Amino acid sequence: MLIVMDNHATQEQINNVTQKIEEMGWEAKQIPGGERVAIGVLRNTGAVDPAIFIDLPGVRDAIPVSKPYKLVSREMHRENKKIILKNGEIVIGGDKIVIMAGPCAVESEAGALEIARLVKEAGASIFRAGAFKPRTSPYAFQGLGETGLKILAMVRDKTGLPIVSEATDPENCDLVEEYADIIQIGTRNMQNYSLLKRAGKAKKPVLLKRGMWATADEFLMAAEYIMSEGNHDVILCERGIRTFSQHSRNTLDINVIPYLQKETHLPVVVDPSHAGGKREQVIPLAKAGAAAGAVALLVEVHNHPEKAFSDGPQSLLPEDFVKLVAELRGMNFKV
Amino acid sequence: MLIVMDNHATQEQINNVTQKIEEMGWEAKQIPGGERVAIGVLRNTGAVDPAIFIDLPGVRDAIPVSKPYKLVSREMHRENKKIILKNGEIVIGGDKIVIMAGPCAVESEAGALEIARLVKEAGASIFRAGAFKPRTSPYAFQGLGETGLKILAMVRDKTGLPIVSEATDPENCDLVEEYADIIQIGTRNMQNYSLLKRAGKAKKPVLLKRGMWATADEFLMAAEYIMSEGNHDVILCERGIRTFSQHSRNTLDINVIPYLQKETHLPVVVDPSHAGGKREQVIPLAKAGAAAGAVALLVEVHNHPEKAFSDGPQSLLPEDFVKLVAELRGMNFKV
Amino acid sequence: MLIVMDNHATQEQINNVTQKIEEMGWEAKQIPGGERVAIGVLRNTGAVDPAIFIDLPGVRDAIPVSKPYKLVSREMHRENKKIILKNGEIVIGGDKIVIMAGPCAVESEAGALEIARLVKEAGASIFRAGAFKPRTSPYAFQGLGETGLKILAMVRDKTGLPIVSEATDPENCDLVEEYADIIQIGTRNMQNYSLLKRAGKAKKPVLLKRGMWATADEFLMAAEYIMSEGNHDVILCERGIRTFSQHSRNTLDINVIPYLQKETHLPVVVDPSHAGGKREQVIPLAKAGAAAGAVALLVEVHNHPEKAFSDGPQSLLPEDFVKLVAELRGMNFKV
Amino acid sequence: MLIVMDNHATQEQINNVTQKIEEMGWEAKQIPGGERVAIGVLRNTGAVDPAIFIDLPGVRDAIPVSKPYKLVSREMHRENKKIILKNGEIVIGGDKIVIMAGPCAVESEAGALEIARLVKEAGASIFRAGAFKPRTSPYAFQGLGETGLKILAMVRDKTGLPIVSEATDPENCDLVEEYADIIQIGTRNMQNYSLLKRAGKAKKPVLLKRGMWATADEFLMAAEYIMSEGNHDVILCERGIRTFSQHSRNTLDINVIPYLQKETHLPVVVDPSHAGGKREQVIPLAKAGAAAGAVALLVEVHNHPEKAFSDGPQSLLPEDFVKLVAELRGMNFKV
Repeated sequence: MLIVMDNHATQEQINNVTQKIEEMGWEAKQIPGGERVAIGVLRNTGAVDPAIFIDLPGVRDAIPVSKPYKLVSREMHRENKKIILKNGEIVIGGDKIVIMAGPCAVESEAGALEIARLVKEAGASIFRAGAFKPRTSPYAFQGLGETGLKILAMVRDKTGLPIVSEATDPENCDLVEEYADIIQIGTRNMQNYSLLKRAGKAKKPVLLKRGMWATADEFLMAAEYIMSEGNHDVILCERGIRTFSQHSRNTLDINVIPYLQKETHLPVVVDPSHAGGKREQVIPLAKAGAAAGAVALLVEVHNHPEKAFSDGPQSLLPEDFVKLVAELRGMNFKV
Repeated sequence: MLIVMDNHATQEQINNVTQKIEEMGWEAKQIPGGERVAIGVLRNTGAVDPAIFIDLPGVRDAIPVSKPYKLVSREMHRENKKIILKNGEIVIGGDKIVIMAGPCAVESEAGALEIARLVKEAGASIFRAGAFKPRTSPYAFQGLGETGLKILAMVRDKTGLPIVSEATDPENCDLVEEYADIIQIGTRNMQNYSLLKRAGKAKKPVLLKRGMWATADEFLMAAEYIMSEGNHDVILCERGIRTFSQHSRNTLDINVIPYLQKETHLPVVVDPSHAGGKREQVIPLAKAGAAAGAVALLVEVHNHPEKAFSDGPQSLLPEDFVKLVAELRGMNFKV
Repeated sequence: MLIVMDNHATQEQINNVTQKIEEMGWEAKQIPGGERVAIGVLRNTGAVDPAIFIDLPGVRDAIPVSKPYKLVSREMHRENKKIILKNGEIVIGGDKIVIMAGPCAVESEAGALEIARLVKEAGASIFRAGAFKPRTSPYAFQGLGETGLKILAMVRDKTGLPIVSEATDPENCDLVEEYADIIQIGTRNMQNYSLLKRAGKAKKPVLLKRGMWATADEFLMAAEYIMSEGNHDVILCERGIRTFSQHSRNTLDINVIPYLQKETHLPVVVDPSHAGGKREQVIPLAKAGAAAGAVALLVEVHNHPEKAFSDGPQSLLPEDFVKLVAELRGMNFKV
Repeated sequence: MLIVMDNHATQEQINNVTQKIEEMGWEAKQIPGGERVAIGVLRNTGAVDPAIFIDLPGVRDAIPVSKPYKLVSREMHRENKKIILKNGEIVIGGDKIVIMAGPCAVESEAGALEIARLVKEAGASIFRAGAFKPRTSPYAFQGLGETGLKILAMVRDKTGLPIVSEATDPENCDLVEEYADIIQIGTRNMQNYSLLKRAGKAKKPVLLKRGMWATADEFLMAAEYIMSEGNHDVILCERGIRTFSQHSRNTLDINVIPYLQKETHLPVVVDPSHAGGKREQVIPLAKAGAAAGAVALLVEVHNHPEKAFSDGPQSLLPEDFVKLVAELRGMNFKV
């Protein structure tokens, strides 16, 4: 923390800030400049709240210098985190682009199994589908719940594909942890702290989607919540943010990929389906995500998108998905 | 829903869309234009998912015409909703600006009571303070929980001020409903549907804060969730949105006030404290909110903001709060 | 400027940064912290470019501490700037809310004069209308040019109202300076530096609209451009910014008013017409702007908005304008 | 245009809208729905201004159905536009990724020539450098002007690389047209209509950068301005937009690439340097841009970025640029 004093600040005001810093058990270091004085806060453990200083008389600004997160930080863990599934057969953060594919929601046993077989055949190594669906409208399809999870478990048994599925509250997180292989936390719940804490106690990896409003640092702090409860297997998923740009449902924050890779050792995944919101955007965004360094892709695929209960227009058709995998391989990515 | 066809669409493609509409049990109406054909969807009940049409061959766009919400809509309820407290002594949506004031969090019995007496004396009619605090960092103060709620109940007994306090998950919503007079749902939980549904079953009014990422229509749909469970006493609170503008913590969407007042009969409240994030912004934003038509204000006040456990820098000092009320009265608002 | 070193930075890297600072003729001050070293840059005149340091090995961040602007800064000029017109009869930044009203564009002599008389009668003290119109479409009405300015001069002669009108390039700025009393620079031209420099040489006050994308600091830097050429009579106009919020054409950044008033001595004006984009938004936004501290309002008024050549739907009708002035007076503003 | 009536609209109000449409010379088509009536506007040539209807009594909304642009539209020109340079040796929009590389600004003859040779050797086919620099601060380096252009012409003579350089007003556009091979219009000038019109009369291709605030449709309308003056050789350049996301200088709108490719036949280029603002972001963004379908890249390269007069921290070092080209080729792009 650097406290910047007003250029009219009095010596008494400066002393007052210094005293406050020392009261907190920290060290104050004055930095006299040409126009104004700044005061560094040293020897603090953990983040310093600007609130403590910003209101003191003569203070112009309080600028955080350190990042607020610890466990997620690459400064703490230099090596890339790898998420290991199926005894190492699948590694998120390894040398392959891992593709998690499937419909938005589980709709029926036959339907889920058919899509799972299609995406496995085409190159996916994890099956994705929701049993608990957070929907903007209370009148929209809300998912099959535990029945859906049982279908997913059956699909895993028959195809060998691990399952990623979303939990939307601490209660259904128990069920998702029981049936699925990766627990997904959706964009709307990125700061649902009760859910984050519950996921932090789970024995399964957590795929955390970025809130469509969240800064990269808030995203990392949400991952810190999970890790602070003991679960260090966190996968970060960029899925598009809210901007003024309305030609697509969201704007994929492609810049966040290199930023996250610099700041954290956790694996970064891209969801091109929600980032685009229209089928025609999915393949370009998926390829862009891989090119920018994402280690995995989360892609919606449906064999009858026009009949899907949700998110049909952003689902790839099976033949589009085959094309996507071929184009990724054409760019020399291992899938 | 209006389906706009490509200007190269074939007659077969047009017929195909028409047939699809009729399969859904709706009526199709062709609108031949100079360059292209559009097709209206009629006789539908509830919103039509663009997903159904956007992928059909020859379709260029599917434009929603109706709004997706019902219960919150002013078209359904022409008269302003009033939230009645204390047998009509307090009316949110009446001819007075109702001020809900207090600290961010309950910190101690003595502290809460002192602030409550100060704000009551100055003109507040509802006391606000959090017992369950959603915090960005897992290492920050998380609130006193039920102990905090008991303190708040005691403050109500001694001051006569009704209490508004936040619930952050369905579980603690039980407690908040038991102790508080108004259940607050915070910005991060605006689309926490488990919590919205629980609040929809509560017997107390709900103050719903807009998600900092949410469009006005998503905000209304979140209120619709609560109302669809039976609780029609919903108060909408604008508290600032995320924009590129970084001179304040958020940007108060002052435009949303007249928009909401046109679209819904529910009362609209402004939270100038979170919208600004700095003390110096609170009074101007509070006055702007009232001037734009808000029927109540939610203001953070702390007598020792530099020692507050959270949100100190945006808390008004008691003397600032007195000034705010005086300035509102100077503008001929009844407080 | 504060240079924050990586927590793994070597002593050599730290020395290297120190040496670089000294090479620039500045002073380096090391601030050893618990985890990492920071280095303050002192004795610099003018802003320090982070570019100089951010790429040096071992540097994690370079944080600006001072603001980049000078002439616009309240630190340089403590007292509010007043813009004086008509020998002091009109003061922008005085104790009255100055209202500049009129149509988007001059359309005809009779029309302009009629509207000018209506708005004067209702309480406006400056007439606004465009002769050079920047339009999104090349096929839309582009303004009457010099003919329009001549009409405006005639309107001034007949009504006594000073004129504010927009210049869109250095060339037509000559004409606007000749005919109008205040030269307006529009939002799209906020960083048209050729135009800013030309306006900086003008002998008339400049009303500078904020770019809909511009941070407050970029807005102030644009004003700095004008002032750096010698023209210190600059009026800052907030007219709404681009956000994800699409229920209004723009989002009025009401927070920027107190921010600007803290940072600069220049007068701050609000344009509720462009900020809202719909008639129903204009009165609430105008009142909010005044309540937040704006010293003047720029309002579009048209007696036949449905026939206006541009911006009809956001123009107030004369009777609405009368209502706005009455409501401002009802809030005890002097108009 | 579709006019949506209020569900309480009277028959008289509906007739009134119909009459208004017919007065404009268009055709009205009523679409009676279950809850409300909508009215289609047919047989119009050019865009219909919602302003005409939105204020009429009983009208709830006026929804544009057609796009406002013509000449830029892919509906008018199905085939991709190719920009041909050096008698076909260089084709922007062909099967190769064209790389335009060089420093932000021309600083000296020797420096420019050295960088040009380096980037040519590494795979660039066009040299970029600014002689007229739009800078946020009036106190920053503003470019060498015509001297800079003469240096660029000399660099072209010695290296064979065509030159792209920025014009910032109609006046210096004359000079840029004279010396350069492609005229660049910068982000801040995307709606500087005087400049767009001047560029529309030029005999050289125009590289138009998207305004950091501009919707995709406004971007296309700016290109329409240029084309409407007769110059059809327009290259669209995405360079990042303003969002709340502050970990990078801008957010590359990667979604806009497939959107533009659907809407227009004009070639789409990505500028990863401004989109990222930090060296570490440039290579990932460049690769993402190519993967998403951009036909060319505009990359800042400087051999001594720490001494560059502007934009040093986002300039690639020559060795980074070599790496970028190698990685693009590794992804099977032809460079």
